[in-house]
Amino acid sequence: MSAERYLARMMRVSAGLAARGIDAAVVGPSPDLVYLSGYDPMPTERATLLIVRAEGDPFMIVPELERPLAVSSPVGSAFDLLGWVDGRDPYREAAKVLEGAALIVVGDRLWSSHLLGLQIALPMAVITSASDVIGAVRSVKDPEELDSLRLAGAAADRAFEEVCGLRFEGRTERDVAADLGRLLLDHGHARVDFTIVASGPNGASPHHAPTDRTIGANEPVVLDFGGTLDAYCSDTTRTVVVGEPSPAFQEVYEVVRRAQTAACEVVRPGAMAQEIDRVARAIINDAGHADRFIHRTGHGIGLEVHEPPYIMEGNETRLRAGMTFSVEPGVYLPGAYGVRIEDIVAVTSDGVERFNRSDRALRVVA
Amino acid sequence: MSAERYLARMMRVSAGLAARGIDAAVVGPSPDLVYLSGYDPMPTERATLLIVRAEGDPFMIVPELERPLAVSSPVGSAFDLLGWVDGRDPYREAAKVLEGAALIVVGDRLWSSHLLGLQIALPMAVITSASDVIGAVRSVKDPEELDSLRLAGAAADRAFEEVCGLRFEGRTERDVAADLGRLLLDHGHARVDFTIVASGPNGASPHHAPTDRTIGANEPVVLDFGGTLDAYCSDTTRTVVVGEPSPAFQEVYEVVRRAQTAACEVVRPGAMAQEIDRVARAIINDAGHADRFIHRTGHGIGLEVHEPPYIMEGNETRLRAGMTFSVEPGVYLPGAYGVRIEDIVAVTSDGVERFNRSDRALRVVA
Repeated sequence: MSAERYLARMMRVSAGLAARGIDAAVVGPSPDLVYLSGYDPMPTERATLLIVRAEGDPFMIVPELERPLAVSSPVGSAFDLLGWVDGRDPYREAAKVLEGAALIVVGDRLWSSHLLGLQIALPMAVITSASDVIGAVRSVKDPEELDSLRLAGAAADRAFEEVCGLRFEGRTERDVAADLGRLLLDHGHARVDFTIVASGPNGASPHHAPTDRTIGANEPVVLDFGGTLDAYCSDTTRTVVVGEPSPAFQEVYEVVRRAQTAACEVVRPGAMAQEIDRVARAIINDAGHADRFIHRTGHGIGLEVHEPPYIMEGNETRLRAGMTFSVEPGVYLPGAYGVRIEDIVAVTSDGVERFNRSDRALRVVA
Repeated sequence: MSAERYLARMMRVSAGLAARGIDAAVVGPSPDLVYLSGYDPMPTERATLLIVRAEGDPFMIVPELERPLAVSSPVGSAFDLLGWVDGRDPYREAAKVLEGAALIVVGDRLWSSHLLGLQIALPMAVITSASDVIGAVRSVKDPEELDSLRLAGAAADRAFEEVCGLRFEGRTERDVAADLGRLLLDHGHARVDFTIVASGPNGASPHHAPTDRTIGANEPVVLDFGGTLDAYCSDTTRTVVVGEPSPAFQEVYEVVRRAQTAACEVVRPGAMAQEIDRVARAIINDAGHADRFIHRTGHGIGLEVHEPPYIMEGNETRLRAGMTFSVEPGVYLPGAYGVRIEDIVAVTSDGVERFNRSDRALRVVA
């Protein structure tokens, strides 16, 4: 990616800071840093701090031993760059650059050790979360980002298609999860981030970690999986059934399917994030499962699998073309099973585009 | 690992808090949490907070949708556990548990978003770093941890031995790095964390990321690699030469080798961490390379590849039996090459044990 695109992103953050009366944003190694600069060092106890200011050029503070890495990063030569050696205080160096700053925001993933260092070095500054500024910029994807997310979604769909052709009954969750991981890689993912395989009662645990439980006949299985392709994330969920579904399960499945479909249909520019949640939740509540839908309806996705906008009650953010997020209502019946259906969608200029296109009708596996 | 061992670790932290007049420690998903509880969820924007108090039982706050995961973790049933649902404020829940706490410490890797949430919910509390308390407990390994680190070190040594039998000249850094990664896995690592292959002038960048540069004849190559085996980290460095070493390089190599050997020899209980650094640095300084040794001499290692104790000037921590850290002096000559030699060592009851045993004599590769 060209240096100009990164510089343009930092300028958008600068403008966002200025508009809110914030002096500067500080981010460490994280998807924020990758988004803004293309620089992707390991987060460690040594501070790497990108400082984007409302006025003035961006500035980066790096461990001296990583200076060559930073300089060779996409916009390394565009930064004022300061290296600090072990034993020096990088936060005091940051404080010099930030002298006079009254209001500073920090990236959400900055380690607390670094935030505490900044707070000590800048005792008069108010430091809050950068999410409203950087998250707002990152949440609206450009065409190249949308392409990457579209590719990641299509690859995840192909992995789902293939896993449905494999045996479930008599195998463990862990084995099916390994298959899913392999399929994500086969279809172009560079990294597997998670492969939830939650059979029978385990399906009632939304973030279940696959176990050695053997999948039984006629059991529902929640498959929620994703990885990173071209730096962007995939994340999709389908609930399948091994053999014959019970009428009760089929009923719950149809409720979740209707909720997910209806929620996707109201996605459009100008809608509030919470409206999407309300549409899904109303259908599940009406079916008598109000207290069984124990999470928000979705989350933004991009360089991170969870990022703004969060699709939940209380989020009055107006959707804009280019925003991408999951729509994933679920119903969880402890001791019995769970149902969740999840697609990644993008807000278009006049509606919605689904990045996951696997059939949402109940799928029977062997 | 048994629940009793985790509970004993939390009690050691409680005692450390009480001894320092600190009311509580708060840690999020991180190696701190794994060490204290065996619970290892993905760190996300949703707060998972383990609260260990100077007085009173440990307490955990988890996203409601991850409650089943938390309950099934090694000490899940020993916790008072509170689940919070999306839209609620987990930091206010933490503040209730922490009511009246004046001095609180937080894990170094806790995300700033969570620390800022705690600071808002606990405006009267002073919040600082937990490193002095939790880091101090974690830095002294128990026999099982030492066994894991010993195994990881031996596996890394075997990977080095094998990579030396492969071709270097005419291949890219990236290709050799891929070989190293594969060999780490072949020899028992569950995960590859880093594979630095820095040929010729790239060796002057201590944290160089492998590139498509073709390795040339008679060039020095720095190999610094590690992964995770049985949850514990390996990390070792050898500098090899392709074919014929130049006399100048051999001289620098011998300086670094003497520095590394001498530093390892002074490791013993009661020595201060900074003494190890001073011994290595004096030898390099005397050889005229004072400004070419641009980093500390080492770092602790365990569940994290970098953790206390840090082997550097200013660290007056007294070494104790069971501490494990790297000894890795280096000399970096911009535009020419770099030399680094690194072993993981453990402090024993009366001296030192090396967990890396690859020969430190200069190794010639093809």
